[in-house]
Amino acid sequence: MGRVTVQRKVMRVRGAGVSHRVDALAAEEPLEIRVNGRPVTITMRTPGHDFDLAAGFLVSEGVIGSADDIIAMRYCAGAVEDGMNTYNVLDLSLAPGVEPPDTSLERNFYTTSSCGVCGKASLDAVRTVARWEVAGDPLRVDAELVAALPDRLRAAQRVFDRTGGLHAAGLFDASGAALCVREDVGRHNAVDKLVGWAVREGRLPLRSTVLMVSGRASFELVQKAVMAGIPMLAAVSAPSSLAVELAAEAGLTLLGFVRGTSMNVYAGEHRVVA
Amino acid sequence: MGRVTVQRKVMRVRGAGVSHRVDALAAEEPLEIRVNGRPVTITMRTPGHDFDLAAGFLVSEGVIGSADDIIAMRYCAGAVEDGMNTYNVLDLSLAPGVEPPDTSLERNFYTTSSCGVCGKASLDAVRTVARWEVAGDPLRVDAELVAALPDRLRAAQRVFDRTGGLHAAGLFDASGAALCVREDVGRHNAVDKLVGWAVREGRLPLRSTVLMVSGRASFELVQKAVMAGIPMLAAVSAPSSLAVELAAEAGLTLLGFVRGTSMNVYAGEHRVVA
Repeated sequence: MGRVTVQRKVMRVRGAGVSHRVDALAAEEPLEIRVNGRPVTITMRTPGHDFDLAAGFLVSEGVIGSADDIIAMRYCAGAVEDGMNTYNVLDLSLAPGVEPPDTSLERNFYTTSSCGVCGKASLDAVRTVARWEVAGDPLRVDAELVAALPDRLRAAQRVFDRTGGLHAAGLFDASGAALCVREDVGRHNAVDKLVGWAVREGRLPLRSTVLMVSGRASFELVQKAVMAGIPMLAAVSAPSSLAVELAAEAGLTLLGFVRGTSMNVYAGEHRVVA
Repeated sequence: MGRVTVQRKVMRVRGAGVSHRVDALAAEEPLEIRVNGRPVTITMRTPGHDFDLAAGFLVSEGVIGSADDIIAMRYCAGAVEDGMNTYNVLDLSLAPGVEPPDTSLERNFYTTSSCGVCGKASLDAVRTVARWEVAGDPLRVDAELVAALPDRLRAAQRVFDRTGGLHAAGLFDASGAALCVREDVGRHNAVDKLVGWAVREGRLPLRSTVLMVSGRASFELVQKAVMAGIPMLAAVSAPSSLAVELAAEAGLTLLGFVRGTSMNVYAGEHRVVA
């Protein structure tokens, strides 16, 4: 627990010069999430904010929508290595009436569509389980404000400076103030930690907020934003085709290549004031 | 099929200037892999080289070790959208005697260890299923040669230049010549496509080769290298703690921050001639 970085001896080659020193690495450990005692997923994550990670994962999956949907969360006492708790197995108990997640492979794809596995089925599945509409969100943001977010995200990244190895996700309000920043070796985990913080704080849906991520914008990240009610997702790098399709269909504003004073707006451009 | 990029209208903000143009996006579509008719995984991938992706996935999972272990691969005829095959469902038939993958959540973690979910169990699981030893591989490479690989990888990335949105994985021989380069929205998919190419060409184990990846080095990427018999993995960015642990235990050489004339060697430094 708290093993956010790990020290390790490294050989450094700089041109013709070779030296040895101790470097800090971003910690990566498996986390098993159990719901009502049953394993639901195993993810490789950076330890820390595990309760947020588990709660955010369940928001993304459409299982919970508020803190009340969870009645207990604990590290399993039996998950022990060398006599110490590994803190790598979390068990959540859902409130009565809250349906546990369907862990079958087909769940995300066959719920609403007859076309089998395809992009359209993936979009339909998100629409079916989303609890909130982001299309009508009145957020409007100056392009200048968005352009400042990557620097603010980087400034708040405490572990990255030491390891260079972590993805970051930051939640900002309409004035550009940081509400929450999370880091993880997995990009989707960083967003789940952030959404989990929000649901546990009673802040869902995250209306009129901007989610800024350090990497690319995939379908999965847009899905997580939609599921948390976030109307704007901004990424430092490129979006994928399906990310843009989902953003356009859900009415989410999607920005990519946010660098310096420039950015591309792939969907929902009415929210960006240039 | 062949939808490697998708065209989309984009609003570009450059300082105070706004314009609209058509941009190329990296395509992302779900691929379901079935083995002997049973769904095994769904991954979000960039279409193209799907047979390689499926074969490489099965190598990484320890299911197959040679081309003969697969007797047939085909797109499912029934996976249709608007009357057209989606090319998003692949069915593989394994040769008699080849055990299909265990799709239970516990498979990677409980096979050999009693400690539950922990880093050590993850390492043990790889050792148990690995078909080849990489520890004894006689590969030795000049640091100068390694330093040249990121540029060679980038030069071979055809789609990235158009979209900026793809991860790349390149396989190089001991002289620095590119054997195969693959791109994908998912970093693990790019490596699976490359390993799948190799197994279908009868080239496993990939002795005395270097795998160069465009992003970070996670546990999962080191695992894929070990499973394919690749003795050296070089990444442009940082490795995670568990990636370094697995590399050290398996005898794989792991390099990170390979940029310009510098690099860090995290494990197996005897193979790097500075």
